[in-house]
Amino acid sequence: MQGKFIVVEGLEGAGKSSAIATILSHLQAKGIPLETVREPGGTPLAEALRELVKRSWEEYISPSTELLLMYASRVQLVENVIMPALKNGKWVIGDRHDLSSRAYQGGGRELGDERLQALKSLTLGNFAPDLTLLLDVDAETGLQRAQERGELDRIEQESLAFFERTRRHYLAIAAREPNIVVIDANQPMPAVHKDILRAIEEQLFI
Amino acid sequence: MQGKFIVVEGLEGAGKSSAIATILSHLQAKGIPLETVREPGGTPLAEALRELVKRSWEEYISPSTELLLMYASRVQLVENVIMPALKNGKWVIGDRHDLSSRAYQGGGRELGDERLQALKSLTLGNFAPDLTLLLDVDAETGLQRAQERGELDRIEQESLAFFERTRRHYLAIAAREPNIVVIDANQPMPAVHKDILRAIEEQLFI
Repeated sequence: MQGKFIVVEGLEGAGKSSAIATILSHLQAKGIPLETVREPGGTPLAEALRELVKRSWEEYISPSTELLLMYASRVQLVENVIMPALKNGKWVIGDRHDLSSRAYQGGGRELGDERLQALKSLTLGNFAPDLTLLLDVDAETGLQRAQERGELDRIEQESLAFFERTRRHYLAIAAREPNIVVIDANQPMPAVHKDILRAIEEQLFI
Repeated sequence: MQGKFIVVEGLEGAGKSSAIATILSHLQAKGIPLETVREPGGTPLAEALRELVKRSWEEYISPSTELLLMYASRVQLVENVIMPALKNGKWVIGDRHDLSSRAYQGGGRELGDERLQALKSLTLGNFAPDLTLLLDVDAETGLQRAQERGELDRIEQESLAFFERTRRHYLAIAAREPNIVVIDANQPMPAVHKDILRAIEEQLFI
């Protein structure tokens, strides 16, 4: 039987890593075979692209270039890792996927969701996660937590306005699409994790 | 006054480098300020992408990934180098551009021209060369010349059938579009160069 693809999304500092740890131990306890991936990255070429897209450059990096590199990395990961794992019955837990591009490049960089959806359909066709969990945190809190963690990469160094636009797009897209569940990540962690596990039970009937 | 963008296209071994040298000396003699570029590459990030896309990898490289990397490199070059040069009145002579992707990834890799045109319009809008010179050489001759020049990169190592598909797409697209002029590159070099300069005179009225 084909596995399920669950994606955890949200701004920097939304608590994605600890959410993923909770999901993994919950599904592991059910005996489900698991694979974890993160984007951008996850194959040798995709990891090389991750390094290029996060590095600071002397030259101007066009929003379209940033988007194309995110997609190049994504296509490698989907075709070489995610799809084969799902076919083998594994469940794949992803740290970011397509919704990140729609929120960060479509929203934060203002490329627009229409363009984002067109690029997605050109490169990945109908492929989509079974469930996306959007950890929603206000931009200031998220940014503060990310800053406390250490050095910020090129994208993380953006302005608060950029992250506010990104968050608005995250929420607007989630409001339109049934496979995206918004989790209030401003709550204390136990409540966040409870909401996450409930969403998985309800949406994936397990 | 805005400069003109002339692109030289064709299979490996078609004679692009010597064609470009001829064009440069012809335009220089007329006192036209010039800039040369090559794709993929031409900015620090674009050159890093050139290296990644030409390198041989242990993993499967998806045709869509290859295409996205070519476009990421192209967008950087167009926005950071070509457009500013044209605005400053320089003429830009390009070694490959969009038509290469349409022929190699659209044709050789069989992604199809519709998808290629959609991606182009998503990322570069209406930007297009003023004149594209397609040096048409039969695939076997081109491949042989490229092999004689030394070690072949990942794409150059493709089969003869791949280059024949690429050539067919080059010619089919050129037959439909008025800004692409086909030059018979199976002729002796002086005849090829004469045809190139005549095409530039006729198409760009200089």
